[in-house]
Amino acid sequence: MVTDDGKPGRIRPAPENHLAASPDPVRRGFLRRAVALGGGALAARTAGSVRADDALDKNLPPHVPEWSRTLGAPTLASPYGVPAKYEANVKRRESPGLTRTPQSSVAFTPLQSLFGIITPSGLHFERHHAGMPDVDPHQHRLMVHGLVANPRIYTMDDIVRFPSVSRVHFIECGANTGMEWGNVAVPTVQYSHGMLSCSEWTGVLLSTLLDEVGIDRAKAKYLLAEGADGASLTRTIPLAMALDDVLVCYGQNGEMLRPEQGYPLRLLVPGVQGVSSVKWLRRIEVGDQPWNTREEALHYIDLMPGGKHRQYTWIHEAKSVITAPSGGQVLLDHGYHEITGLAWSGRGKVSRVDVSTDGGRNWRTARLSEPVLTKALTRFRIDWTWNGGPALLQSRVIDETGYVQPTIRQLRAVRGIRSIYHNNAIQTWRVDATGEVSNVQVL
Amino acid sequence: MVTDDGKPGRIRPAPENHLAASPDPVRRGFLRRAVALGGGALAARTAGSVRADDALDKNLPPHVPEWSRTLGAPTLASPYGVPAKYEANVKRRESPGLTRTPQSSVAFTPLQSLFGIITPSGLHFERHHAGMPDVDPHQHRLMVHGLVANPRIYTMDDIVRFPSVSRVHFIECGANTGMEWGNVAVPTVQYSHGMLSCSEWTGVLLSTLLDEVGIDRAKAKYLLAEGADGASLTRTIPLAMALDDVLVCYGQNGEMLRPEQGYPLRLLVPGVQGVSSVKWLRRIEVGDQPWNTREEALHYIDLMPGGKHRQYTWIHEAKSVITAPSGGQVLLDHGYHEITGLAWSGRGKVSRVDVSTDGGRNWRTARLSEPVLTKALTRFRIDWTWNGGPALLQSRVIDETGYVQPTIRQLRAVRGIRSIYHNNAIQTWRVDATGEVSNVQVL
Repeated sequence: MVTDDGKPGRIRPAPENHLAASPDPVRRGFLRRAVALGGGALAARTAGSVRADDALDKNLPPHVPEWSRTLGAPTLASPYGVPAKYEANVKRRESPGLTRTPQSSVAFTPLQSLFGIITPSGLHFERHHAGMPDVDPHQHRLMVHGLVANPRIYTMDDIVRFPSVSRVHFIECGANTGMEWGNVAVPTVQYSHGMLSCSEWTGVLLSTLLDEVGIDRAKAKYLLAEGADGASLTRTIPLAMALDDVLVCYGQNGEMLRPEQGYPLRLLVPGVQGVSSVKWLRRIEVGDQPWNTREEALHYIDLMPGGKHRQYTWIHEAKSVITAPSGGQVLLDHGYHEITGLAWSGRGKVSRVDVSTDGGRNWRTARLSEPVLTKALTRFRIDWTWNGGPALLQSRVIDETGYVQPTIRQLRAVRGIRSIYHNNAIQTWRVDATGEVSNVQVL
Repeated sequence: MVTDDGKPGRIRPAPENHLAASPDPVRRGFLRRAVALGGGALAARTAGSVRADDALDKNLPPHVPEWSRTLGAPTLASPYGVPAKYEANVKRRESPGLTRTPQSSVAFTPLQSLFGIITPSGLHFERHHAGMPDVDPHQHRLMVHGLVANPRIYTMDDIVRFPSVSRVHFIECGANTGMEWGNVAVPTVQYSHGMLSCSEWTGVLLSTLLDEVGIDRAKAKYLLAEGADGASLTRTIPLAMALDDVLVCYGQNGEMLRPEQGYPLRLLVPGVQGVSSVKWLRRIEVGDQPWNTREEALHYIDLMPGGKHRQYTWIHEAKSVITAPSGGQVLLDHGYHEITGLAWSGRGKVSRVDVSTDGGRNWRTARLSEPVLTKALTRFRIDWTWNGGPALLQSRVIDETGYVQPTIRQLRAVRGIRSIYHNNAIQTWRVDATGEVSNVQVL
C-alpha cells in the first residue's frame, strides 16, 4: 500500500528547540507530508492517497495488519481510559526557568494538537501559587460570611445538594501571551497562548449561595474569595459580577474537578482572568470595598507607559489565535490547507472571525463551528491554498459587543511594552518559502 | 467545624449488590446525608451546614487543614492529568457473565456520577466484537471504493488534511436498556442506561470524502463500513444518511480518539444505534443494496411479537432517564432534592422534558441546560421536595418532531417482550419510605 512520504529528501524535521512543542504524530504528519502534486485544492488534498484500483491492478499483496487477524484487548482493560500510546507527545509542558519554584509554575495546554472547543481535562493548563494541594472532600468546607444575615459553613454534601447548572466556559490566565508585549516571540502556540482551556463546568450559581446567606444589599459591594492551598490565594470579586454568572463548581467535563483544577470546589468567574477563579475554594467573605490582596496589589496589575499601574482589570477582551498551522510546524506541500484556530471573548459570544494570509492586508471570514457559546472558546476554520510563497497568517475576532481584536501596534500605543497581563493582540505566524512556520511580530 | 452526619443511626449503606454501582463519594454523601430538619426547601438545603458565627461563638479551634499549611505538589506532576484519588469509584463497569468472552463485552458508563452532557473520554462506554485492537496510525489506511469514479486508499495524513467539522453527538448502543424488555429490572442506571455517552467529535464529513471519490449517483444507494478489528465489523449505511451528517472521526473531546473508541479513525453516524458507528474504520464500499452482514442479519434486529424480525431499524427514537436519584442510591433527608437526568433523540433536538414523581399521574416541565444540540445528550433538572412518602420518579422527553417517549406498556403493546434493541421506554425509579431508590417497572 502507500508508504508515508515517498520523497525523503523533502522531509524536514521540526525545529530542535526545547521549547518547541511537537504536534501529535498524525497532525505532524499532515503538516509534513512531502508529496506535492500541486494543482487545485482537491488534487492536492488527495495527493498522498493511492488509487485503490492501482493497488489492486498491481496485484499488491493484501495488506491485512496483525490487529485485523487477532483478538484485541479485553473490554474494560482500563476502567478509566487513557489516550493511545502513539499520542504521548500531546501533553502539558512547562517552560523551564519561567518561575523560581515548580509549585508556582505554569503547565501549558498543547493547543496545536487539539480539535473542537473542549479541552480534555488531562490537558487543562495549570497555574499554581503554592503547588497542588491534596484536599479530602469529606473534610473540605466552604465558609460564606461577612455582610450577610446567615453566615454558613458548608460541607461538600451541602454544596452538591443545591440546584445546579452546567455551562461551557473558557479559563485564560491573565498572563497568557504575556511575553509578546516586548520583542520576545515564543516559538509555539503552546507557549504563546497555552494558558487557555475550555470545559463544561457544573456547580451552583454563586447567586444561589448568596441568596441563601442573605447578603446585606445596602452595604455589600465586593466579595473576597479564598483558596485552601498553601498560598491562601485571595481575590476580590465585584458583587454585580458575583450575582451574574459566577459559579461555585465541583464538576468539569462531566466528572468531579481534577485535583489541579481545584478539587473538590473552585470558583469560576466567566470571562475574567483565571486567577479570579479561585481553586480549592474555602471562603467567601462579603464586604463593601476591594481587599487589595497580594495577588491584586503586587501581581495581576497592568503597568502603563507613564509608570502607573492599572488595578482590577478583570475582563478578557476578545482574542483569537490560529492553532494550525502555527509556530514550530512545517508545511511540506503546496495546495490545500485548512487553517483553524480558537476565538473567545470575556464579554459574551464571538460574532465573526476573519483570517488573513498576507499579514492583514486582505481578510476573509472564517467558518464558526457550532455551538457558539457565551464566554466559551469558539472554533474557526477556513480553506487556504498555499502557493508556496511566504505568507503571514493572522486571525481577528469581533465579539457581540462589536469589539475588534487589536493589532499589537494598536495595543502598544495605549499600553506600552512593559505589561505582562491582558495581551489580546492579533497573532502572526510566518510561513516561509520552505514551509517552516514561526512566530513573528508584525509592527 | 461541622462533622458529617451527626445521627449515625440514620445512615444506611448502599445495597451490597455486586451489580450496584456506588456513586462517587461526594454525590453519595449528598444522597445519604442524614440530617433532616424538614421545613421548606431552603431550610432543608442548608440543614447540614453550620452557622459560621455559631462555630466562632463556641470558640472552636481554627481548623486549618494540613494542605493549607504546606506547599502542594509541583506543577506538571502529571503531564496528562488524572482524576482525584477520592473518585476511584467513578469508573466503567462490566456486568459479569453478560457475554461469553471479555473481548465481546460491554463496559458501562457511570451515568449516576456524571454532570452536564460531555462524557469524560475515559468513561465512554465500550462495546467490542473482537476486543480492542492496537492500531498504528502510520500504518492505518482507509479504502473508499465500489460504485465510485476514483477509488482511493487514504493514509491518516490524508484524512486529517480534509476540511473538518466538530459536532457534539451521543452514541448509544442499540441494546441499551435491553434487559428491561422483559421483567428484569437491573439495579442501577449504570447498567440500565450506561451504554450511552456523548462527546465533541471532530473529523471529515463523509460527504466530503464521497464527493472526492465521485460516487455513481445513478446507482449508489448504500454504503458498507468495515472496521479493522479482528471482527471486521461491517454495517450497511443508507446513502441519504451518509450524505447528511455522518462523520469520519479522528477527534474526541478535543484530542485524538481513544483506543477503545476506534483510534485512529471511526465512523460516527449521529442518532443511530452505536454499532453503525464503525470503529477502527478501514473501508467504505459504495453499492446499490444493503449487505445483510452478520451484524445486521443475525444481531441488531428487532424480534416482533408475531415471530418476525425487523431489520435495518437504525434510528434511536427519543429517550430520557433520571440519573439522580437513581437505583442503588439512598435518600436520607426529606425536603429539597434536585432531580436530574439526560434526554436525547436520534431525530434532532430535545424540545421538552417532563418529570413525574408519582408514577406518571402528574407531570412538571424540567429545566434544560444550554446548549441543546441536535442528536446530543441534553441535561435536564427539576426541583423536588420529598415529603418522605413513597415516590415513583419518571422522565418523559418530547423531541422537535413532536415524538413523545412511550411507556413500557405502550412499547410492549407494539413490540412484545422478546426484543433486545431499541427500548426507549420511560424509566421508573421507586423511592420507598426509607429513602432507598430501586428500579421498578410500572405496567
